[in-house]
Amino acid sequence: MSKEQNYHQYGLQEERKQFQLERLILFSDAVFAIAITLLVIEIRVPEIENTSQFTPAIKLALYNMLPQFFGFILSFAVIGQFWLTHHKLFGHVTNYNNKLLRLNLLFLFWIVLVPFTSGLNSRYGNVDFVWMVYCLNLFFISLSLILIYKYVGSAKWHLSNFSENKILLKHSITRAVLIACVFLASAVFSIPNNIFFSYLSRFTFFLIPVVISVLNKRLKKQLTKH
Amino acid sequence: MSKEQNYHQYGLQEERKQFQLERLILFSDAVFAIAITLLVIEIRVPEIENTSQFTPAIKLALYNMLPQFFGFILSFAVIGQFWLTHHKLFGHVTNYNNKLLRLNLLFLFWIVLVPFTSGLNSRYGNVDFVWMVYCLNLFFISLSLILIYKYVGSAKWHLSNFSENKILLKHSITRAVLIACVFLASAVFSIPNNIFFSYLSRFTFFLIPVVISVLNKRLKKQLTKH
Amino acid sequence: MSKEQNYHQYGLQEERKQFQLERLILFSDAVFAIAITLLVIEIRVPEIENTSQFTPAIKLALYNMLPQFFGFILSFAVIGQFWLTHHKLFGHVTNYNNKLLRLNLLFLFWIVLVPFTSGLNSRYGNVDFVWMVYCLNLFFISLSLILIYKYVGSAKWHLSNFSENKILLKHSITRAVLIACVFLASAVFSIPNNIFFSYLSRFTFFLIPVVISVLNKRLKKQLTKH
Amino acid sequence: MSKEQNYHQYGLQEERKQFQLERLILFSDAVFAIAITLLVIEIRVPEIENTSQFTPAIKLALYNMLPQFFGFILSFAVIGQFWLTHHKLFGHVTNYNNKLLRLNLLFLFWIVLVPFTSGLNSRYGNVDFVWMVYCLNLFFISLSLILIYKYVGSAKWHLSNFSENKILLKHSITRAVLIACVFLASAVFSIPNNIFFSYLSRFTFFLIPVVISVLNKRLKKQLTKH
Repeated sequence: MSKEQNYHQYGLQEERKQFQLERLILFSDAVFAIAITLLVIEIRVPEIENTSQFTPAIKLALYNMLPQFFGFILSFAVIGQFWLTHHKLFGHVTNYNNKLLRLNLLFLFWIVLVPFTSGLNSRYGNVDFVWMVYCLNLFFISLSLILIYKYVGSAKWHLSNFSENKILLKHSITRAVLIACVFLASAVFSIPNNIFFSYLSRFTFFLIPVVISVLNKRLKKQLTKH
Repeated sequence: MSKEQNYHQYGLQEERKQFQLERLILFSDAVFAIAITLLVIEIRVPEIENTSQFTPAIKLALYNMLPQFFGFILSFAVIGQFWLTHHKLFGHVTNYNNKLLRLNLLFLFWIVLVPFTSGLNSRYGNVDFVWMVYCLNLFFISLSLILIYKYVGSAKWHLSNFSENKILLKHSITRAVLIACVFLASAVFSIPNNIFFSYLSRFTFFLIPVVISVLNKRLKKQLTKH
Repeated sequence: MSKEQNYHQYGLQEERKQFQLERLILFSDAVFAIAITLLVIEIRVPEIENTSQFTPAIKLALYNMLPQFFGFILSFAVIGQFWLTHHKLFGHVTNYNNKLLRLNLLFLFWIVLVPFTSGLNSRYGNVDFVWMVYCLNLFFISLSLILIYKYVGSAKWHLSNFSENKILLKHSITRAVLIACVFLASAVFSIPNNIFFSYLSRFTFFLIPVVISVLNKRLKKQLTKH
Repeated sequence: MSKEQNYHQYGLQEERKQFQLERLILFSDAVFAIAITLLVIEIRVPEIENTSQFTPAIKLALYNMLPQFFGFILSFAVIGQFWLTHHKLFGHVTNYNNKLLRLNLLFLFWIVLVPFTSGLNSRYGNVDFVWMVYCLNLFFISLSLILIYKYVGSAKWHLSNFSENKILLKHSITRAVLIACVFLASAVFSIPNNIFFSYLSRFTFFLIPVVISVLNKRLKKQLTKH
């Protein structure tokens, strides 16, 4: 066997393993893509009865659907953000094992639930209990993300290059933990079913972009110090 | 033509064949992803009539949907598990032919049916006949899986590297056959339409994780012996 | 710059072009996967009113849905078969241009319509007009397939390796033309709205597997002669 | 470490980065594929009451659905065209950063909305306000496209090979800006809710193929001059 063929065979085997990992990632992407697109299915074309004045009736119908649109935008942003994080995380993963596949499926389970809890939230957004269910769903996504980070980051399994990026790993886990805490707090604040806590719950939720940007700035500082 | 170009061309041709195989796999993944995400469509946002007390009405509605959530979790776990097996199986496949494509389509046919039988099961879970239909669906998935294993494992077609992993092939087929038997038994036990067999049927079904973990332990022992 | 890097850069550029082609193919696969999975959405879980005897009511409901299941199986087989052909066809495509992308989109347009015409056919299967619409849809898929074969096979555009497989190209086009003719004949026979032609139309349709297997045998003979 | 392994490792790292970029693209493709296929879901199988004469009833129902079919074809063509542009654009992208991922998500947000605004348009096509909403949706897709072109084309971020194709970049941006203007004009013309402007709005919309083909011809001339 010539040297080139030999090298080629070695390359093919490596490629095979890589492809199995890529398959895990692309399967996740497909689930993400479907979940994010299903969100729009919840927004149904309004049915308007025959009337001489269609235009104002449609304007009114769309106006009444504003909470639905807001819920759609929110869930799109949330799933989009989780996709970004998943994208970043798996950019460091170099190998896989059975447990990682299962943890990723657990993560996807909570992602797949979002179109339902988001639809519930769009429909009954002013009910605190429904908002709690939505926040809990997002909390469980974050929780599974932390589990994946912890598992993949552990040097024991040789699944990632995080051993050479310990600062990055620590930062990512801190970020995920903080976000999970915010979701949990938002869920807890919506339990008392009282107007003050109701507002507090929503306010807490929208702290997340702030949390993310503060943490990212801190990371940049740390990385330039080293 | 230089040596590098020559090698490159050979590589491209190989890559082409590999890509055709990958296309088969990624198409399957897309079908899996859609089937697993469609499960959530069966869980519809409950419609609640105008009432002064929304919160208890929604809690009640969600409480009444518990069987649906349970059915959703079950089917997610089942499709997820079949995806894991498909992922493991095709990690050994190195080539394809027309018949393999067709067997895979047969397998996907039964996967695509799951959102329907699972929806049926979520809606009428206490009816034994519906449970039987669901179990038969899963039985036919397992059956097609066995057909793929047998075909791909046969040394005659040079489709896999199982010839160097005969123990693994035998183990995988044994596992698939046992799981198929469990699904079939669960389906058969739900025929008499009698409370004892009804429980027996459900009990049999939930033996599957036990079957899998016992078999996996045996495999590990066998592999370390060699 | 070292020889290896130089070679690597050349490889990357080649890979880029290859990836653009793969993107076309994987996009098509995603559309196929979604269309084939949407078929099951047309089969809705039957709604049964509260009754003391659930089991016979469900059995009856499912029995009444038999034409829907048959329609589902038929359309799954048809889309599956078109996917197989698309898979085989693009296994020979080595390059792409704007027109090929557009022809492929035209092909996908007719594929995307199948869940609708198939749903129509499942619902009103005994109405000849509906059957005609379904057959016309399949006819237009075949027609776009022929256009792709002709375009890709033309030596002028250097899009495929069919120039080295002229027998295969000719065989594939013959096959696609014959299948298109069968679909068209089936559509035409369902125009008179008369019981004899109605049966003739269905009979013609189910000739397709025969056509395919006869042609494949002839191809094999031709290929062994050369 | 041998030279081959060394080279191989360098290749793997490069491949990783490439794969992260491909993941972004394939995720977008999945979203495109789902959005384009969901369009058909809006076209529902008509429900016809029991009648002795099914055929004329179905013909009438389908005839009444003609605006829906027209809306479906229009939106398929629009999303298909945006996919083609996205395909062409990312054929020049060689790297990615966080901001590009976000801009792409913004672009996908407006793509995901199309099945809704298109469904609205199919259902109430003669209402000018609905047509305006549809045109605004398409305008925002074009706008995000321009943002991506500008960002990716900027030499500062080293994200594309447009620095070697400045004419192409300029042409692409001009094209995208003109198309955005046409969509905006079409939206604006539908505000007065008056028959003349209503026709003008539709007429403007269908200028787009003309705009594209004129610009493409000019580009070809420019490219052959250089």
